[in-house]
Amino acid sequence: MPGIIERFRSYLDLPDGVDPVTLSEGSTPLISMPRLASDLGAVELHIKFEGSNPTGSFKDRGMTTAITAAVSRGASAVICASTGNTAASAAAYAARAGLRCVVLLPHGKVASGKLAAAYTHGAEVVEVEGSYDEALGLARRLSERTSINLVNSLNPYRLEGQKTAAFEISESLGAAPDWVALPVGNAGNISAYWMGFRQLADLQGGDLPRLLGVQASGSASLVEGRVIDHPETVASAIRIGNPARGEQALRAAEESSGRIIAVPDHAILDAQRDLAHQGLWVEPASAAGLAGLRSEVEAGRLDLSGQRVVCICTGHGLKDPHVPAGPTTLIQPRLQDLEELLNL
Amino acid sequence: MPGIIERFRSYLDLPDGVDPVTLSEGSTPLISMPRLASDLGAVELHIKFEGSNPTGSFKDRGMTTAITAAVSRGASAVICASTGNTAASAAAYAARAGLRCVVLLPHGKVASGKLAAAYTHGAEVVEVEGSYDEALGLARRLSERTSINLVNSLNPYRLEGQKTAAFEISESLGAAPDWVALPVGNAGNISAYWMGFRQLADLQGGDLPRLLGVQASGSASLVEGRVIDHPETVASAIRIGNPARGEQALRAAEESSGRIIAVPDHAILDAQRDLAHQGLWVEPASAAGLAGLRSEVEAGRLDLSGQRVVCICTGHGLKDPHVPAGPTTLIQPRLQDLEELLNL
Repeated sequence: MPGIIERFRSYLDLPDGVDPVTLSEGSTPLISMPRLASDLGAVELHIKFEGSNPTGSFKDRGMTTAITAAVSRGASAVICASTGNTAASAAAYAARAGLRCVVLLPHGKVASGKLAAAYTHGAEVVEVEGSYDEALGLARRLSERTSINLVNSLNPYRLEGQKTAAFEISESLGAAPDWVALPVGNAGNISAYWMGFRQLADLQGGDLPRLLGVQASGSASLVEGRVIDHPETVASAIRIGNPARGEQALRAAEESSGRIIAVPDHAILDAQRDLAHQGLWVEPASAAGLAGLRSEVEAGRLDLSGQRVVCICTGHGLKDPHVPAGPTTLIQPRLQDLEELLNL
Repeated sequence: MPGIIERFRSYLDLPDGVDPVTLSEGSTPLISMPRLASDLGAVELHIKFEGSNPTGSFKDRGMTTAITAAVSRGASAVICASTGNTAASAAAYAARAGLRCVVLLPHGKVASGKLAAAYTHGAEVVEVEGSYDEALGLARRLSERTSINLVNSLNPYRLEGQKTAAFEISESLGAAPDWVALPVGNAGNISAYWMGFRQLADLQGGDLPRLLGVQASGSASLVEGRVIDHPETVASAIRIGNPARGEQALRAAEESSGRIIAVPDHAILDAQRDLAHQGLWVEPASAAGLAGLRSEVEAGRLDLSGQRVVCICTGHGLKDPHVPAGPTTLIQPRLQDLEELLNL
C-alpha cells in the first residue's frame, strides 16, 4: 500500500512535483469492537488504530507531508521541540530523506527511553535549559532565520497529512460516522480531522460527524478556558497546558455540533485496560476518546442509540509501556501443579 | 484492509465456516531502500516491515489463524511458553476472541518489561521453575490432556498464517523476488515463507526466490549442526539454541538453492543502525537479514547484480528499545548558543 501522499495527493495542499518522502504510513486498521459498542448503546464502535504507523503513532501522517515539503523547499535541515512522539517521527522521516534533524528538549523533563527512536534514527538531540515553550520558541526563531524547517504542528503541512485519517475512515465505512471521539493534547489532530471530513463533504456531499474531543482533567485547558501552568495526567501525550491549536479545535468541535470535555485519569486507564482486554494495546492518551464517550453516556448527556461511532487511538501501547506487572505465580514444572493453579 | 484470513482464505488450510479472530494483521509495508540496494550492488532492496502488525511483530499473522482454529475447535483456553513476542500476540488475540490465555515463563529469565503486553491483555502469567524447554513441555502436555490449545509454533496453524507474508510480497512486486533474507530463530518463519512461495508457484507458476536464513553467531545451531546449550546474542528474538523447525528450515534453504548462515552481533547492530538511518527502527533480530546479505556479498560468496532482494524485518524497534542514549548537549535558550552548537 502506498503512503498517504500517493493515495490522496489531489486532496492535499502540497508543493507540486516532489517525490513523497514516505515510510508507507497510513492505511491503518479500522477495527470493529462489538462488545464495547453494545456497552455504550451504540450500533457500531470502531477503533482507528494509528499505532500501526511506522513509528507507532499518528504523527507519521503529518511528517510525510512536512518532510516532503521541506525537501521541496530545499531545507538544509529540520528542527522540532518535542518530548516524544514528534521527535521519533521527525527523526525517522528526516533519515528517510537524508536530511539533518535537530530535536530540542526541555532539560530534565524527558525520560531518556522516550528518545530512543530519535537517537537511533540519527537525530541531533539538544537539551535546552528551560521549559518546553522556550525550546519551541528557540526552534521557531531559528527556523525563521535559516533554511532549517520547523516541523512542529505549527507547520501547516502537518495538518494536511493528518487529515487523511478522516478520508480513510469515510472510505472504510462508506460514509462519515455519526461521532468521532479522540484525545486532545496540542489540538492539532482534532483540527486536522475536521479539515478532512469537511473537505470530503464539500467535494462529495454527505454528512459530517460530530466531534468529541477529550482532554485529561489535569490538563483541561480548553474545557476550563485557561492556560494550565503545570499540566498533570498519566496520559503523557496530552499533558499539554496551552494547546497550539486550541482555538481551531474549539471551533471544530462547535461547528460539528460536538464538544470538548475532560475525563479523570482513572477513567482513561479503565478505558485503556478495556481496549487491551479486547485485543488492542494503546498508549494511555489514546484511550481518552473511549473514556470520554463513556463519561457522557453515563451522565445522560449523550445517547448513542442507532449511532455509528469511531474512536481514534493515536499511538501504540509500546510507546508508553510502563504497565504495572500483574501477579505471577511460581510453580514447579509438574503438570499437576499447573492444573491445580488453573483450577482444571 | 481486512486481516489475512479474509484476504487469503482460499489459500489457507483452516477449518471452514468460522469467523476470523482478527485485529487487521498483515498488509504490512514493503519499503524500497535504494541506498542500501546500491551498497549491496543489487538492483532493488525492499524491507518487509512486519513491525506494523497490531502487536508489533510478525507473530500476529500466525496468531489470527491459531486462535481462529482454537475457537472453531471449541478450545476452553490457549496456552504458550514464551519470553516475549509470542506471549504478546497470543494474549492480544485471545482477548479479541474472549478466550482465556495462559503464558508460561521460565523463572528468572524474562525481563518484566517484555511481558507488559501479556499482562495488559489480561493473560494469566505463570512462572515455571525450569528452562524454556521445560515450560514448553509442560504447556504441550497440558494441551494434550485438556481442551486447552497450544499456540506455540508447533501448532501448524501458526505457519499457515505466517506464509501469507510471502503472498503479499509477490503481490506487491508482481513476482517473487530473487532473494529473501530473514532472521532464523525457532525457524518457523523461514519454513512458512517457503510454504507460501511454493504454494504460489504451484498455483500460478513463476519463479521461486532463494532464501538466505541468518542466525546470530552465538546461537548458530543450524550452521554448526548442534544444539547450543547456552545461546547468546543481543538479538533476543533469535536467541534460541534448539530450533523447533530446524530441519524444515534447512530443507527450505536447500530446496531454494539458498543457505543458512551466521553473523556476529556487531554486524547485526550495524545493520540495525543503518536501517534506522534510512528511517526504519527494527528490533535487533530483524536486522539479521541485511547483515547476512552484507556478509555474503563482502566475502564474495554472493553477487546481487541485477537481483531483486527482500529483507524481512520481523519486529518493531519499540519491542526492544534498549538503545544506548546518544550524546546530548545542554544549552541556554539563546539563539546564538544553538547556532554555535549546530555550526551555523
